[in-house]
Amino acid sequence: MESLPIYALVMGAIALAISAVLYVRVKSAPEGNETMQRIARWIREGAMAFLWREYKVLAVYSVVVGGGMLALFGNLGPLAAGSFAVGAFLSLLAGFFGMKAATFANVRTAEAARTKGKPDALLMALDGGAVMGLAVAGLGLLGMGALYKLFGNTEAVYSDAHALEKMGTVLHAFAVGASSIALFARIGGGIYTKAADVGADIVGKVEANIPEDDPRNPGVIADNVGDNVGDTAGMGADIFESYIAAMVAAAALGLTLPVADLQAKLLGSGSTVSEQAVRYIAVGLPVLLSTLGLAVSILGIFITRTLKNMPPATVLRLALILPPFLVTGAAAVVLPMFGIASGAVITLGVGAAAGAIIGLVTDYYTSMGPIRSIAESSKTGPGTNVIRGLAVGMESCAIPLLTLVAAGLVSSHYLGLYGIAIAAVGMLAGTAIVMTVDTYGPIADNAGGISEMSGLGPEVRAITDELDAVGNTTAAVGKGFAIGSAVLTVIALFAAFNQAAGLTSLSLTDSEVLMGVMLGAVLPVLVGAWTMTAVGRAAGAIVEEIRRQFREIPGLLEGKEGVEPQPGVIVDIATTAALKEMILPGALAIVAPCAIGFIFGAKMLAGALAGALAVGATLSLLMANAGGAWDNAKKFIEKGGVPGHGKGSDVHKAAVVGDTVGDPFKDTSGPGVAILIKVMGVVSLLIAPLLKG
Amino acid sequence: MESLPIYALVMGAIALAISAVLYVRVKSAPEGNETMQRIARWIREGAMAFLWREYKVLAVYSVVVGGGMLALFGNLGPLAAGSFAVGAFLSLLAGFFGMKAATFANVRTAEAARTKGKPDALLMALDGGAVMGLAVAGLGLLGMGALYKLFGNTEAVYSDAHALEKMGTVLHAFAVGASSIALFARIGGGIYTKAADVGADIVGKVEANIPEDDPRNPGVIADNVGDNVGDTAGMGADIFESYIAAMVAAAALGLTLPVADLQAKLLGSGSTVSEQAVRYIAVGLPVLLSTLGLAVSILGIFITRTLKNMPPATVLRLALILPPFLVTGAAAVVLPMFGIASGAVITLGVGAAAGAIIGLVTDYYTSMGPIRSIAESSKTGPGTNVIRGLAVGMESCAIPLLTLVAAGLVSSHYLGLYGIAIAAVGMLAGTAIVMTVDTYGPIADNAGGISEMSGLGPEVRAITDELDAVGNTTAAVGKGFAIGSAVLTVIALFAAFNQAAGLTSLSLTDSEVLMGVMLGAVLPVLVGAWTMTAVGRAAGAIVEEIRRQFREIPGLLEGKEGVEPQPGVIVDIATTAALKEMILPGALAIVAPCAIGFIFGAKMLAGALAGALAVGATLSLLMANAGGAWDNAKKFIEKGGVPGHGKGSDVHKAAVVGDTVGDPFKDTSGPGVAILIKVMGVVSLLIAPLLKG
Repeated sequence: MESLPIYALVMGAIALAISAVLYVRVKSAPEGNETMQRIARWIREGAMAFLWREYKVLAVYSVVVGGGMLALFGNLGPLAAGSFAVGAFLSLLAGFFGMKAATFANVRTAEAARTKGKPDALLMALDGGAVMGLAVAGLGLLGMGALYKLFGNTEAVYSDAHALEKMGTVLHAFAVGASSIALFARIGGGIYTKAADVGADIVGKVEANIPEDDPRNPGVIADNVGDNVGDTAGMGADIFESYIAAMVAAAALGLTLPVADLQAKLLGSGSTVSEQAVRYIAVGLPVLLSTLGLAVSILGIFITRTLKNMPPATVLRLALILPPFLVTGAAAVVLPMFGIASGAVITLGVGAAAGAIIGLVTDYYTSMGPIRSIAESSKTGPGTNVIRGLAVGMESCAIPLLTLVAAGLVSSHYLGLYGIAIAAVGMLAGTAIVMTVDTYGPIADNAGGISEMSGLGPEVRAITDELDAVGNTTAAVGKGFAIGSAVLTVIALFAAFNQAAGLTSLSLTDSEVLMGVMLGAVLPVLVGAWTMTAVGRAAGAIVEEIRRQFREIPGLLEGKEGVEPQPGVIVDIATTAALKEMILPGALAIVAPCAIGFIFGAKMLAGALAGALAVGATLSLLMANAGGAWDNAKKFIEKGGVPGHGKGSDVHKAAVVGDTVGDPFKDTSGPGVAILIKVMGVVSLLIAPLLKG
Repeated sequence: MESLPIYALVMGAIALAISAVLYVRVKSAPEGNETMQRIARWIREGAMAFLWREYKVLAVYSVVVGGGMLALFGNLGPLAAGSFAVGAFLSLLAGFFGMKAATFANVRTAEAARTKGKPDALLMALDGGAVMGLAVAGLGLLGMGALYKLFGNTEAVYSDAHALEKMGTVLHAFAVGASSIALFARIGGGIYTKAADVGADIVGKVEANIPEDDPRNPGVIADNVGDNVGDTAGMGADIFESYIAAMVAAAALGLTLPVADLQAKLLGSGSTVSEQAVRYIAVGLPVLLSTLGLAVSILGIFITRTLKNMPPATVLRLALILPPFLVTGAAAVVLPMFGIASGAVITLGVGAAAGAIIGLVTDYYTSMGPIRSIAESSKTGPGTNVIRGLAVGMESCAIPLLTLVAAGLVSSHYLGLYGIAIAAVGMLAGTAIVMTVDTYGPIADNAGGISEMSGLGPEVRAITDELDAVGNTTAAVGKGFAIGSAVLTVIALFAAFNQAAGLTSLSLTDSEVLMGVMLGAVLPVLVGAWTMTAVGRAAGAIVEEIRRQFREIPGLLEGKEGVEPQPGVIVDIATTAALKEMILPGALAIVAPCAIGFIFGAKMLAGALAGALAVGATLSLLMANAGGAWDNAKKFIEKGGVPGHGKGSDVHKAAVVGDTVGDPFKDTSGPGVAILIKVMGVVSLLIAPLLKG
């Protein structure tokens, strides 16, 4: 066990080294003709400008929160604030390099499609994605490995109350740092991307009747920037935080659950090691599993790269689903070496299976029968399209939630509440490759946009369209994974909070707890409402500006040679709006648990976490899946899925309405609600010891 | 205390007598010209045909459930089944006479508007509504009073374990009977009314471009039938069940909570009465409060009638909000006579205030600033209209839920969990008048439809339009009340279930409870999904049939003299579809708690109730309020609220899309989800003793 942090640090470093090599490789690839380069530069500069301005807001935020930690945590204040800062910084770093790579890879994917063909274009998009994937997992593991090395890597720590308190605070603050960045990156990025998307579509597709990604539309650049800041940087920070939070939840439960029970379940009834040794192992296990997971993922990324000539959809789908099972297999070999009982392997397997089921169910609801029913219901207009889409979204929550219930029951049967955290860690063990495939999507999407705007011709567009379509499918599976693992992680965080706050009993027959549940139910709907409103408001401002440009720039709409739109103005409007609008929902996620905890106490906060979890899990699944289904129903109609009613027909127009509603659902509010409950869990865990008294 | 059941029975009988007098009065009023009579007969026959066919389905259902009770409850089986049957029968009776009166009053309201003017038309609609209102409260109180008289009206009962078991079973089975009818009446009626509404609108307003309620549209009769079977009979059964369930929950808690605590809180710390006396009072109190409430309501109805010349909106709003406060005042005088401490009065006052706040907040979100913002957002198309409406719906949950949390905390501070039930009883004490005003709405709506279809001319239509508009406003307040009291009732039922199942501790740190919460979260979204789908599917069938009639009946669409549509066919399609589609969601509400309880045990069922409560309360508020807001945003645009974009404009068309989505939201799925959680609570309470072993 003593060498565990070394393994973790080495594996993290390897991942980062590969990430760096791929970064250089992507950057040195040919960038295409001058038009392509110019458009790509606009997108890159827009995306980086957003990131920099967002960082300024986050710097202020971090100073405030860091100051709060200094004030609240006494002696441990500096350590807490420092750990918080490191967590935040690593998340920013991963997002920065990942997004930079993505904004290099997009145009080079288009260029590869133009000059070399589909397999090379696929590879370029994958490599671009792998920079993010490896950076997220590598930095995450480096951070956790380092903290474990510094604060938890001797048995002696586990018999020293002060050392334990220190370790707990450091770990929780680290997770709060990662969560904070994720919160704002996800919500801000989500508002940006959908405001630009909806705004550009409303004026372009609906009013001016020009195609998507048409270079005359000044909103198109902002739309492509949005893919990067929302789907790449936002998603990266989001997964980074789940990855950290799942490990921290498992470690926290390893520190606080009754040791006898932990020992019997984790090491078997015959185990005779000391109490300290049990905790030492329980805290180390998530790091060990993530190290195994990263090794498997790196292997997976290389295997995926060699399969570039196979049908991309199959390859990418396997790349998402297999790694957790491979980690389970590896664990079956490695864990007995540490004397860990077989229950841990079973728990991992259950987590992997649950992840696969949720991913496939998400895929089903956003691509098969249900989207056909949405397409059919568009025949009677946008109203019935929206009704059907909402119904699909609601129905799609059932199997994933039931799967999580089953996974929770089985894993807690084997390892108690600790098992739920281990199942989440197992589900997230494939983070490097999941994030690679997730980032592949917006790169392929951008490549398509750049091809269209640069007029690269139908054969190039056909390649980028296919890559984009594959990205949409894998995005669904990846999102299912992301939400599934997030919910499991929050359940684990909730359990960890209860332990850390000393709430050994938390009865729903207590009216404080019960009213806490109802109170918690309010928070997800508020974040949902505010983010939807924010997108609507920001999109409205963009619509006005695009209309103004069409009106005031002579020859623009007619496509006169040499007349160009002013995309920078739109990018600026979207940036300003997103940064402003992210404050309120973001603040709620941090302030609400603190306010409830400090004013009403730990019991009511625990109830509120449970209520927010139940409503938040449901709402985020509903929104993400309904949004995906509407999007694909529209595409299904465009491909001729409803005979006699293709692109531009009334049926298609009805489907575009559903897609418009689905845009903020799937990329702003749904993920925003999911991250809300994660952040609430992490923040509560951090303040738990303060509520104990 | 011994005379309490006599008071209750007498007050119930008085209410029924007044209801009968009003029924005769309404029926004997002039019915208008031949066209009006014919149309009214179509509506009445359609509504009664639906009710009869629904009753057949319910008869089969009752035999199955009654048989199940005989099998499960051993010795008590016959009593349970009998009490269940009585509860169901009283609900049917109230629905039957109430709806019959409403279908008499609609045409007579139109006739009064034509021949006598607004005040008399208002009075006719109110009298029609009062038949339902008084029948619901009168029969409810009669039933509860009789059960209390037969099974609980001596102190001796409360020291006899067997007698107590008998009383518990009888009360719970009575509530299950009332709930079962409410469940199917609400869901079946909701599917019927919205399928007909959406179907008629899609072909009429959108495709054929003819006005609402145009006599050429064969769907219009079914639409008006729907107002009766959904908004009148369905709503009546729904409120009847809340009324019963709140009393039963309070009685159940009075039977099972630790007696010392109950005594200290209810009778004051100086109380020296026996344990039996405490329970006797605790079980009797809800009946006493409902008796007071009915007296106040009857008075209120008569006062409202005398105010017919005042602005109707003000009168009706006061009629909804004041009664609970008056009941509180009456209780402040009466309760000390029974030695009950002032905490009970405070609890009632809190319940009344919470009801008023929720009603007014609902009114705000469905009529003021928010609907203006939805109307504005319609300028950029149906997509942004729907986005804004959903955001309004989500936001509108916050204050009502927070209000309920505050009410729950305060009332449980004074009276423990029992206080939450008493707050619910207090909120529902005005049931007779609330239901009167609620039924007034569809009567006025129908009167408008009949005026339009009979060509009564603009001045008559102006009166019925105004009455209809007032009905829409009060409907919002009434709905807020209904959902608010439902949520409080379910919280009380949940607490009663925990006691009855012997779950003194129900810790969220127990993974079974926690996974139960996640499992429960699934149920409301499933009912939401299934009811939305049902409306979509049934509306689709109606659309096809209306299109067929327009196509195959020569001269119909052109409005040729003497050519008439075939509304009976549509009525039949809607009836068949609604009765078929209500089975699945209805069965879920009954089967799910039984399955979870008998397979996984009481703890997991309790968790599931809490999860369903959190998600269900949120979802039903969201849907009801979003639906109301969309509806009124559309009407706001029609009245010129968005200058330059009136009826028929693109902005208006966008708002119609939102209204179409809102239709099943507010009248099918929202109420369906609310009733789901009530039924789950009641069914769980009934089976609780069986899960104890």
